[in-house]
Amino acid sequence: MAHTIRDIAAALGAEAMGNLDLTVSRAAEPQMAGPQDLALAMDPKYADGLAKGRARAAMVWQGADWQALGLEAAIFAPRSRVAMAGLSQMLDPGPQIASGIHPMAVIDPGAEIGEGAAIGPFVVIGAGVRIGSGARIASHVSIAEGASLGADAMILQGVRIGPGVTIGDRFIAQPGAVIGGDGFSFVTPEKSGVEEIRGTLGQRDEIRQQSWTRIHSLGSVTIGDDVEIGANATVDRGTIRDTRVGSGTKIDNLVQLGHNVQVGRDCLLCGQVGVAGSTRIGDRVVLAGQVGVSDNIFIGDDVIAGGGTKIFSNVPASRVILGNPAVKMETQMEINKALRRLPRLAATVAELQKLVSKL
Amino acid sequence: MAHTIRDIAAALGAEAMGNLDLTVSRAAEPQMAGPQDLALAMDPKYADGLAKGRARAAMVWQGADWQALGLEAAIFAPRSRVAMAGLSQMLDPGPQIASGIHPMAVIDPGAEIGEGAAIGPFVVIGAGVRIGSGARIASHVSIAEGASLGADAMILQGVRIGPGVTIGDRFIAQPGAVIGGDGFSFVTPEKSGVEEIRGTLGQRDEIRQQSWTRIHSLGSVTIGDDVEIGANATVDRGTIRDTRVGSGTKIDNLVQLGHNVQVGRDCLLCGQVGVAGSTRIGDRVVLAGQVGVSDNIFIGDDVIAGGGTKIFSNVPASRVILGNPAVKMETQMEINKALRRLPRLAATVAELQKLVSKL
Amino acid sequence: MAHTIRDIAAALGAEAMGNLDLTVSRAAEPQMAGPQDLALAMDPKYADGLAKGRARAAMVWQGADWQALGLEAAIFAPRSRVAMAGLSQMLDPGPQIASGIHPMAVIDPGAEIGEGAAIGPFVVIGAGVRIGSGARIASHVSIAEGASLGADAMILQGVRIGPGVTIGDRFIAQPGAVIGGDGFSFVTPEKSGVEEIRGTLGQRDEIRQQSWTRIHSLGSVTIGDDVEIGANATVDRGTIRDTRVGSGTKIDNLVQLGHNVQVGRDCLLCGQVGVAGSTRIGDRVVLAGQVGVSDNIFIGDDVIAGGGTKIFSNVPASRVILGNPAVKMETQMEINKALRRLPRLAATVAELQKLVSKL
Repeated sequence: MAHTIRDIAAALGAEAMGNLDLTVSRAAEPQMAGPQDLALAMDPKYADGLAKGRARAAMVWQGADWQALGLEAAIFAPRSRVAMAGLSQMLDPGPQIASGIHPMAVIDPGAEIGEGAAIGPFVVIGAGVRIGSGARIASHVSIAEGASLGADAMILQGVRIGPGVTIGDRFIAQPGAVIGGDGFSFVTPEKSGVEEIRGTLGQRDEIRQQSWTRIHSLGSVTIGDDVEIGANATVDRGTIRDTRVGSGTKIDNLVQLGHNVQVGRDCLLCGQVGVAGSTRIGDRVVLAGQVGVSDNIFIGDDVIAGGGTKIFSNVPASRVILGNPAVKMETQMEINKALRRLPRLAATVAELQKLVSKL
Repeated sequence: MAHTIRDIAAALGAEAMGNLDLTVSRAAEPQMAGPQDLALAMDPKYADGLAKGRARAAMVWQGADWQALGLEAAIFAPRSRVAMAGLSQMLDPGPQIASGIHPMAVIDPGAEIGEGAAIGPFVVIGAGVRIGSGARIASHVSIAEGASLGADAMILQGVRIGPGVTIGDRFIAQPGAVIGGDGFSFVTPEKSGVEEIRGTLGQRDEIRQQSWTRIHSLGSVTIGDDVEIGANATVDRGTIRDTRVGSGTKIDNLVQLGHNVQVGRDCLLCGQVGVAGSTRIGDRVVLAGQVGVSDNIFIGDDVIAGGGTKIFSNVPASRVILGNPAVKMETQMEINKALRRLPRLAATVAELQKLVSKL
Repeated sequence: MAHTIRDIAAALGAEAMGNLDLTVSRAAEPQMAGPQDLALAMDPKYADGLAKGRARAAMVWQGADWQALGLEAAIFAPRSRVAMAGLSQMLDPGPQIASGIHPMAVIDPGAEIGEGAAIGPFVVIGAGVRIGSGARIASHVSIAEGASLGADAMILQGVRIGPGVTIGDRFIAQPGAVIGGDGFSFVTPEKSGVEEIRGTLGQRDEIRQQSWTRIHSLGSVTIGDDVEIGANATVDRGTIRDTRVGSGTKIDNLVQLGHNVQVGRDCLLCGQVGVAGSTRIGDRVVLAGQVGVSDNIFIGDDVIAGGGTKIFSNVPASRVILGNPAVKMETQMEINKALRRLPRLAATVAELQKLVSKL
């Protein structure tokens, strides 16, 4: 897929100079770039790399002297990561899935598949499934009875979509994601030890034998538009109403969302985040890698939690938090400093005690 | 699947009043409930919801005036989550898998499949596998040579069961679970850096080049009755003897159990818990989300660990623990309080030092 | 697969005594061992077990009086875990995959498959894929267009290998591993809240609405020789250049490696480790279970991080670290001790304050 410099600049809304008819087919780092590549040199530190590589065209920093850099054409990127988004979309060939339905897919005769679908081998689509137009469904995917997907879905290899799951337009699922497994919800005939210590913060009157009875998930999962879910991530079904993920939210690899969880719009949930059952998360919330969120709590809009933060109680909107347990990030930074000095502090106090007892 | 109020109440062992012949086919939240639904209103706070919805029947709190609530029939739930367990089981249609063996499944001729099985497309069952009666095996599952499963197994899409794995009755596996991958066990020709620092708590005499040789897993996995394992969870094979999971234990999504781990009966291991190799866990242990357990240690019966707890050493029976590293939950709560005040404490000590030095 | 004691000893480079023509086919714990088994009794504590079992041959500790232990043959193991590595390799039958290509595999006619391959049912291999000799590829695996694997690959059930992934010789992938999912890389049109707080450590001038635009992954993944990757682990593609894993590195179950990550040679990344985008990890680094590593940082050679360590900044070579946030292991051990006494320390300081104010 070759593109002219003119077309790329136009698509990015960026200025370009030089031979705008030059074509490129890939992006590359400056020192690795060949004559068919667009070198990515959005910072002056890449000038050396450009000299080492063989690029004829590059995306360069504002004000770069592109001719002195030996280029025949240049695109000037105003905000480099935004430019990358547009550029990478143009140059991504996407997965190779032959158009039409592969003869070794098993599609229920009652399923409705929209126009222009490409469905790979060993796909299974159940009764009553509805899939919008332009779907790309790679090999080994299963979509269970009654699920529905909007337009332009890209479902990669081995994704599992459970019964009755409802998903909006432009959904992307990376390999192995599981949407709509049963919730992890069990109950004991009498009050369980876990229920008891929630009230007492650790005290237990009596320890009983107990075994667990399953609460089945009668709800499903509802997902908005423009959502992406990562490889081997898992989203469980709700107990009565659906687990929900709002439009524009992006979920990374190996994330776990428990039953009944409600995630708002435009959130980022990074790798290995876990959100326990029935918790509600507002809009534009960012949870960095390995954050954990307890069950049945509420995280306000625009909250940002740093890596590995463990959240045990409600968080008001717009707060930036860190640590285990989560506190305001600036507080945690002070605690961290003090912690490193804690052994010395203890020694100082011991000395003071001696001195004062003498006085 | 419609049920009469009479049948539901009988199944739950609960009292019912009104028109017991009324039928319902789904459970719903009170304000969302339609005339075919059983509204779930096990607390007086749901009275308003009942008024907004259109339910004719509901499961209500003890002592509710069901007629004043506008209902034609009511079931009185003694303990609401227990009632939910029974009710949800009655109303769960389960996965749609056609009975018999799908023509696009590959079953070794030597495998024994019990009566009443439903096996979906693209399932692979290896030589010498034995599966009890009433199995429901969804699409894309693989069950390797020599594995055996008891009666009434429900194995969802894409589950992997490894060679020689032995599983009891009523096993449930959510999509993508892997039971019987190889253990993560490697050795260096000389003492490795990891072995060295275990003794010295961080001191290393000399840093050597080292590369890793694999110890193959010759054991397999043995799982009791009534066990459930979550989506994309992983349980590794043992080195010589089997990794074991006791009857009644429930394992959530993305949990990792290392080689040789022994888990007792009726435990709950919540989302993203990790247990390293050769650790033994007693009966009725509850590990909340993202708990980590070191290798080669022992967790006693009835231990409960709060979310994100990291356990590095043995834990006596019945203890309730929290934190990184794990301490008693009540101790951790005090530490947490003190931590928030730690920067101030450090300032106070500095002041005291000045004052005392003046004296 | 039976082996003589002579052959096993020769393969391990170990001394053996007694009837060297005796054959064994399995390894077993001493008390469980039958007459066809090799009992593993590499420590004097196993003498009792040997007496209880029915083994005729055993691998024993240096200096053991094998005849007094009732054995007909004995192998003397110099370093027991090293001996286990060799022994377990000899006795591991490996996965049963019929040689040749299963009729229900879908192989692109342009793919090159080396000699001696065994490819199971429901495997999908894309256009331009090259696979070296001796490959064992279990059921349900997908290998996307343009990927290449070296000799003697063992790819277990349901593994996903993405487009253009390049892998060396003797690669092992456990069930459900995903290599080459898209990176988790998103950008907002204006500076996002996350970018802002990185500079200010938590302060935000203004909270804006923001939505996320995807940066597509144009790079792929490059993996060296002798690498193993665990069940349901995920390795994302790079943005421009490839994400890289060096030769000899072993990756455990449910590990997540973000886009552009560079891992060196002979590392061990244990269960549920997460490494965020663009971070570089040196050679022989060991990250214990549930370690988290922030994006865009550098971990030096020979670093060892204990279980659950959260690493937010660069770590110099050879350091042994622990805790959240990571500090030197010995420092963390002191902090942990002081933490347990922290509530008491606070009380002591309060008392001192009173005393001093009286003075």
